[in-house]
Amino acid sequence: MVIQIIGVGHIGGSLAITLKENGFAKKIIGSDLDTDALDQALRRRIIDAAMPWEAGLEAADLCVLSVPVDAILHLLPKVLDKTDKQVVLDVGSTKGNILNLVDKHSKRGRFVATHPMAGTEYSGVEAAIPKLFDDKYTVLCEGERSDPDAREIVEALYASIPMKMVALDRKAHDLHTAYVSHISHISSFALALTVLEKEKDEERIFELASSGFGSTVRLAKSSPDMWIPIFRQNRDHLLDVLDEHINTLATFRTLLIKQKFDEFHQLIKEANRIRKILD
Amino acid sequence: MVIQIIGVGHIGGSLAITLKENGFAKKIIGSDLDTDALDQALRRRIIDAAMPWEAGLEAADLCVLSVPVDAILHLLPKVLDKTDKQVVLDVGSTKGNILNLVDKHSKRGRFVATHPMAGTEYSGVEAAIPKLFDDKYTVLCEGERSDPDAREIVEALYASIPMKMVALDRKAHDLHTAYVSHISHISSFALALTVLEKEKDEERIFELASSGFGSTVRLAKSSPDMWIPIFRQNRDHLLDVLDEHINTLATFRTLLIKQKFDEFHQLIKEANRIRKILD
Repeated sequence: MVIQIIGVGHIGGSLAITLKENGFAKKIIGSDLDTDALDQALRRRIIDAAMPWEAGLEAADLCVLSVPVDAILHLLPKVLDKTDKQVVLDVGSTKGNILNLVDKHSKRGRFVATHPMAGTEYSGVEAAIPKLFDDKYTVLCEGERSDPDAREIVEALYASIPMKMVALDRKAHDLHTAYVSHISHISSFALALTVLEKEKDEERIFELASSGFGSTVRLAKSSPDMWIPIFRQNRDHLLDVLDEHINTLATFRTLLIKQKFDEFHQLIKEANRIRKILD
Repeated sequence: MVIQIIGVGHIGGSLAITLKENGFAKKIIGSDLDTDALDQALRRRIIDAAMPWEAGLEAADLCVLSVPVDAILHLLPKVLDKTDKQVVLDVGSTKGNILNLVDKHSKRGRFVATHPMAGTEYSGVEAAIPKLFDDKYTVLCEGERSDPDAREIVEALYASIPMKMVALDRKAHDLHTAYVSHISHISSFALALTVLEKEKDEERIFELASSGFGSTVRLAKSSPDMWIPIFRQNRDHLLDVLDEHINTLATFRTLLIKQKFDEFHQLIKEANRIRKILD
């Protein structure tokens, strides 16, 4: 199968490596406005050819949109306009706006909306790595609206990696990802800013920061070019979770001020239940 | 050198393993109110003998207090009362209250206050592991108040691991650790509670949680028995940082509500500066 990757970055590049390595893709065509990224992808043999997206689409059996979610909104209708029998797949971190946009498109059936729950705090083709997706979950979003053959191809693609699949509608996807992904980024960005603001002596942070701190602020290294569009598109759900998070921190603050350490102890024991889920 | 470890848990047990392995300790005596922990430490050969703390202290050249910081406040004066030529060392995560307590103690010179900046979210002797401290930093707190020979022995102990050493007074220690360690735990506990509260369907969290979420809430697995005493003792500094953190999140909230995404983008670029410090 000839696969086009539009957006040869961390996710698109890693997917290209994986699908080439496991034989699902016979040939990978890369398309990207960033010609440096394309050159690097060619040099690293992550892609076999670089083409403008229109030419690449014509030559491909399947097109993966792995650009930031605001760029997906811009590109997807144009890509579907030019789609014939190809399958078009997106891997964006929001789903509501994207699906709303193409609900009535005449080629809607060729489109399969997914969200592989994988990634690191790094971005760009230089961060493209093998095994990024292995054994993780992908959300298949409203697969019943895609043509059966398109859906089957996408299911086969993810199974080849292998990734497990969970089906969600657009609302449930955007709600759950606000909880388990987007708020983590908000929290990390805020923590990094807080500590950078207060600790002017950066060398000291470096010396004292234990691995716990590094783990908690790791996501604060993530690119604003990827994340601001996600926050913009998932704004309502994110505000709900953010309000709840600020309330929880305000509760901690009150318990500290009032020195109610027994109650605080109880809350931390509740927080420990996360062990059952993540271990 | 015969070393007594009072508190054979994650930190004390890991230190015992390390100092035995590198030859700094000829013999390790374990003391702990938890007899199951002592039994396990003996069976795993983490300690060579188990004794009540008074008898262990008599037989030791150096005594390490590796119990929660509230227990250090309780034990340290009693240990110093019974100290002759031994060196007494603590590894607690707060320093102000502990040092205030023994400023006038007649055996103050035998005590060396330290804080090795290492640890994981796990606790208890079952979490005792080798190499926990390798190449990390230890804070030596007001070493000039310890007898020179006692300080030299402790410096040799940490150098043997090897750990690097940074000198701070009690105030600077408690301030900096509030920033780079304690607030990370507060943030993780709050995030875990927020998500557990909102996501009643725990299986879904498990499926969708990417590694980013796991990293951000990892510290929420930490024991309240260790952390509540730390929060209690470093309450004032922690409240300062917590207020700042809540303010930062409130700023994010306002930017989301007002849809000021350019400003938000700018803030996240600032947060990205954490890369320089942690990479």
